[in-house]
Amino acid sequence: MFATMGALGLAPTAQAASREPAFRAPSPGDFSLKGRAAAKVVVVGGGIAGLAAAYELGKAGYDCTVLEARGRTGGRNFTVRGGDTTTDTLGNRQTARFSDGQYMNAGPGRIPQWMVTLDYCRELGVPVEVFTNENANAYLFNEKAGMKAPVRYRTAKADMYGYVAELLAKASDKGALDRQITADDQERLLEFLKDFGDIGDTLDYTGSPRRGYRVDPAAAGTPGAELGPVPAVSEVFASGVGRYFAFEFEYDQAMLMFQPVGGMDRIPAALTRAVGERRIRTGAAVTEIKDTAHGVTVTYTQGGRTRRVEADYCVAALPPNILAKTAHNLGPAVQSALEACKPSSAGKIGLEYRSRWWESDHRIFGGITETDMDLSHIWYPSYGHLGERGTIIGYYNTGANADAYAALTPRERETRAVAQGVKIHGAKYRTELATSFSHHWRQTPYLEASWHSLSGGPDAPAFAPLNRPAGHVYFAGDYLSYTDAWQHGAFTSARKAVTALHSRVLA
Amino acid sequence: MFATMGALGLAPTAQAASREPAFRAPSPGDFSLKGRAAAKVVVVGGGIAGLAAAYELGKAGYDCTVLEARGRTGGRNFTVRGGDTTTDTLGNRQTARFSDGQYMNAGPGRIPQWMVTLDYCRELGVPVEVFTNENANAYLFNEKAGMKAPVRYRTAKADMYGYVAELLAKASDKGALDRQITADDQERLLEFLKDFGDIGDTLDYTGSPRRGYRVDPAAAGTPGAELGPVPAVSEVFASGVGRYFAFEFEYDQAMLMFQPVGGMDRIPAALTRAVGERRIRTGAAVTEIKDTAHGVTVTYTQGGRTRRVEADYCVAALPPNILAKTAHNLGPAVQSALEACKPSSAGKIGLEYRSRWWESDHRIFGGITETDMDLSHIWYPSYGHLGERGTIIGYYNTGANADAYAALTPRERETRAVAQGVKIHGAKYRTELATSFSHHWRQTPYLEASWHSLSGGPDAPAFAPLNRPAGHVYFAGDYLSYTDAWQHGAFTSARKAVTALHSRVLA
Repeated sequence: MFATMGALGLAPTAQAASREPAFRAPSPGDFSLKGRAAAKVVVVGGGIAGLAAAYELGKAGYDCTVLEARGRTGGRNFTVRGGDTTTDTLGNRQTARFSDGQYMNAGPGRIPQWMVTLDYCRELGVPVEVFTNENANAYLFNEKAGMKAPVRYRTAKADMYGYVAELLAKASDKGALDRQITADDQERLLEFLKDFGDIGDTLDYTGSPRRGYRVDPAAAGTPGAELGPVPAVSEVFASGVGRYFAFEFEYDQAMLMFQPVGGMDRIPAALTRAVGERRIRTGAAVTEIKDTAHGVTVTYTQGGRTRRVEADYCVAALPPNILAKTAHNLGPAVQSALEACKPSSAGKIGLEYRSRWWESDHRIFGGITETDMDLSHIWYPSYGHLGERGTIIGYYNTGANADAYAALTPRERETRAVAQGVKIHGAKYRTELATSFSHHWRQTPYLEASWHSLSGGPDAPAFAPLNRPAGHVYFAGDYLSYTDAWQHGAFTSARKAVTALHSRVLA
Repeated sequence: MFATMGALGLAPTAQAASREPAFRAPSPGDFSLKGRAAAKVVVVGGGIAGLAAAYELGKAGYDCTVLEARGRTGGRNFTVRGGDTTTDTLGNRQTARFSDGQYMNAGPGRIPQWMVTLDYCRELGVPVEVFTNENANAYLFNEKAGMKAPVRYRTAKADMYGYVAELLAKASDKGALDRQITADDQERLLEFLKDFGDIGDTLDYTGSPRRGYRVDPAAAGTPGAELGPVPAVSEVFASGVGRYFAFEFEYDQAMLMFQPVGGMDRIPAALTRAVGERRIRTGAAVTEIKDTAHGVTVTYTQGGRTRRVEADYCVAALPPNILAKTAHNLGPAVQSALEACKPSSAGKIGLEYRSRWWESDHRIFGGITETDMDLSHIWYPSYGHLGERGTIIGYYNTGANADAYAALTPRERETRAVAQGVKIHGAKYRTELATSFSHHWRQTPYLEASWHSLSGGPDAPAFAPLNRPAGHVYFAGDYLSYTDAWQHGAFTSARKAVTALHSRVLA
């Protein structure tokens, strides 16, 4: 009967997890066999891709120099703490006033289990903790769809799944599935649906303890009072809450998810230490990349002075939109490809509160509230549970919504975000607020994008010039991967460039 | 259109979470108004209920003495670390050989967000972290149902939800729902089902990236290879994997869940400090509880000597099956009620491994693997991610399965659990094992139960004698709650007893 259970693609015991094609880091021993020597490499850009390239090449003794235009490494991996100051391309200057121990990850915030980012955390000794990517107690609020009040994930899910189960169970009961599946299958389906939808033998969905309680079950005398009454099926469907449930099924987003303890920038900090600070020049804005007969010459400015690095090879790990604005002699095909990488917008605001009212009053210990408002997502913090203060991500939005917020002053952004959050959480969303800090990537100097859109994907012909070396220059970045906007894309792209460069040196 | 959205039971902004009826802790100020004084209370049993009662009464200055038969407080809240020794009622003696930093929670292991247990963690300064109660990367393996290989949660869910969506979408398409819901509703349902089941416009489920990948998406050139092929609908239904999905919808079990950092016994440890060690006598086995004209006399043995405590009141916080074997003069109705509380069985084995192969090889960073085998559940650790060693709960089973394992020697239990785990995880489940420790509550002296079954619930007439004082004796324990087996039940039952006792003293 289960002869084809092998169709699941698994051996009698589970296989090791799917992984990217095996990567073998360069090692000093590679040269002794070949009679070659490690080369000198200039890495342009000290984000994750650039740092990872220097780190992996450094394992084999390559002499790497990393040039980073900003004052710190990490690129879009940016954790904002009290005292951090930014000035955006629109002239907004902000200094974060977060309390000790409070932070916001302005860029990447979460790591799925399968991504190589976690392998780097292990290798570099960066402790991780759960990133709370879903929470049954968080809210859903589709204001535009006409919802008058937020509803908890658990309640919305109980109702949606309850009605879906009822409809399918009754359709089966009436013979509507008879042509598609056998009677045995329908019996098994019915058993599943009763459990999945918490519907009884009448097949009617009439509510469930899964919706939650008005009064929680407690000691004898307090059996608890279920939340009710149950909205009609039309209301549940029209509210649009169902659109949020598939998020947690996605390969990139399904729990469990992780974050470094203390902030996402523990990763570039560890990479920076591993590469060696002496090899990294910050405040070094590259002005020209010139491929030469036997290597590369990179020109940059640092502290008002123009400097040059000569190297055998270059790993160009700047965002493509920035690289496109940098002088180079890599040819028009490269330039066209860089210009075809379209920059995207995203922004976040961190709201530090004097109390963790979402925990004490709403029993929300992490997770994400979803809305159809222009703030899109609200993230409750995945650290500091039960503590005194906490920092919520008051919006995490993209595209036109991010651009709209970016056009405001930081104070106006706070006002707009808080006014919307109050609709969901009540007055404390405003009265407990201590300070805020907002960050928009399209307006961030030397980056000017949250991520990039490559029409047809990174292997489309238009991008071929970036997937091979241009003379002695190799390209790397999450944009040249199938997981753009994820550090995994930057790491695996860097590995690809490193492998190609090292193979050439050994050849 | 959404006029009845108020049916969700929520005001325009979300209400504070549902909570048990407000509890007001006794305070010294209560007496000054009434001209009364705090009384002397003997608390029998130093588990969560007993400690909580002494803690709350102590806030108002009650002179509490806690008698605990075992060598430590906490009752079933028992965290096993290296060096801990147990001897069960069958004569099995074990000493745990876990490495430094490794532990297993032999009793309660998880805390839902809504339970008052988290309030006590906050009040007592016990840090918490996420308990990983579900994981898309964990396995499902129904060997008895004929499955030849484990399947990941995410894969099983994609297939089950995919086929459910296909069946319902096609039923709607054929008009089978026309009598139940409107055309608009069906349109919205269809939109939901396409997303929920990842089915295309043909409404056929033909697989999905949500199933997972054989080769993960990575850099350009590596788009990833989806796991496949997709098993037929009959196979998916017959495998019975769908029975595990509703677990995460349950009010008690839905993520997010929490655990104290460092072990569940941080809670009784903090309570013990707050009550004051001088008020707690361990190794003090109560032999008689005697209600007298003006108070209570409790007799116990300690170090081979018989001792007595005289007090105004007693909180009897022993498990009912133990209390039923203790001499008392509380009357036959009390005795019958105690005997009607039926003890249950549960057991766990902790398997410490020399490497965290489930993380490196299987990309499973926490969560639970579900089976239809006699080990029932396998828990991957929720702490120490990316570290050197780790401790898996190799079985967590109940009832007959727990009794079957309890009847074995600790070594036999390990052999049996490992042989089954190998079927799921492969050879490392055996070869990487460093040490194990098993614990069965039905065989644990002075407890002899994992939890209790009260026919009809705690408010059934049979248990009325336990829900009121017997003379000067008040009963408390999770068994006298609607959340038996949860610390929340013990805490709320203790609060109820404290409130009743304090009211009487003030009256």
